[in-house]
Amino acid sequence: MKLYEFEAFPNPRRVRVFLAEKGIEVDKEQVDVPSGAHRTEAFRAINSDATVPCLALDDGTTISQCVPISRYFEAKHPEPPLMGKTPSEQAEVAMWQRRVEEGLMNAATTYYHHATPGLGKLEPFQIKEWGEKNRERVFATMELLDKTLADRNYVAGDDYSIADITTLCALDFANYAGMQTPDSCKNLKRWHANVSARPSASA
Amino acid sequence: MKLYEFEAFPNPRRVRVFLAEKGIEVDKEQVDVPSGAHRTEAFRAINSDATVPCLALDDGTTISQCVPISRYFEAKHPEPPLMGKTPSEQAEVAMWQRRVEEGLMNAATTYYHHATPGLGKLEPFQIKEWGEKNRERVFATMELLDKTLADRNYVAGDDYSIADITTLCALDFANYAGMQTPDSCKNLKRWHANVSARPSASA
Repeated sequence: MKLYEFEAFPNPRRVRVFLAEKGIEVDKEQVDVPSGAHRTEAFRAINSDATVPCLALDDGTTISQCVPISRYFEAKHPEPPLMGKTPSEQAEVAMWQRRVEEGLMNAATTYYHHATPGLGKLEPFQIKEWGEKNRERVFATMELLDKTLADRNYVAGDDYSIADITTLCALDFANYAGMQTPDSCKNLKRWHANVSARPSASA
Repeated sequence: MKLYEFEAFPNPRRVRVFLAEKGIEVDKEQVDVPSGAHRTEAFRAINSDATVPCLALDDGTTISQCVPISRYFEAKHPEPPLMGKTPSEQAEVAMWQRRVEEGLMNAATTYYHHATPGLGKLEPFQIKEWGEKNRERVFATMELLDKTLADRNYVAGDDYSIADITTLCALDFANYAGMQTPDSCKNLKRWHANVSARPSASA
């Protein structure tokens, strides 16, 4: 089994943090995305999506995208649960993970790709207005998270979950891309300090 | 428990097909989205996302979005499994579901909202160029699915799954929105006839 990833990017980080929380070690290979290494014929033969992270299983199957890779490890190594225990917890974790994935991670990367120099020649198609619209969505999601975290410790409820991992990686990326968490988001900032202090955050 | 939905729309259909495949009956309430019924204060008190479908549980929790709702029922009623059995099947189903959700369902609805009259005054923000870019993605995903279905019966492998449900609802919506499946996509058309013949398709 091998995890193909690129350390500097926010999505591969989601899988590294997930694995660190589970205490799972996996062989890793860096794919140098800025130089286009994910678009070579050799890499497309491993992952036709031409994306990292992706997980190559020993039977030849390749799993791409963060949540499907995490789902594999959650099923294989259920402890500690990071995707909910009861049916309603599982649903709430999935819902919050998806809200943050869309409203913070995807919105922040869309802003970055469309409204900043982004990855340059690697992603030349840009619509600045679409990027700016997504910037608004990033801040709206920060506000939603701040409100939600007023009366709970973690994004999806009482327990740390994959929803916190997505939020951590997305928020750090949004901050890096110039969208600072407003000082008024005190609950979100308290949560951020808390989850950033876990050893997994630097995985 | 109550499922809030709107029969004419493609996303609520995903949950209805999922429930039909499981043989689960749930109380339903129609939310008239074209007249803005999802944006009233009363509905936002049930689902702050202001979207359908959403599932209100008896304990007061509301789950929004198709996959989280499906995850609840999969955990509660595991048979027949629609989200994979083994860890690698679960990951492959999640991966294909997500590929189709992004590349076909979200791309088709983005085209519809940005490059056609769409929902009119309900969704007034439009960037035509972004809509057209997503139209290209719809056809690229149809080609990917056609290639994938050359040597398997279902989108994620040997068994019917939530990935087929997302594909069915997305493809029917894309066709409705003017993006016909090309005749050259013979495998995708064969698969479509096959899954459309299941009683769940008309749920």
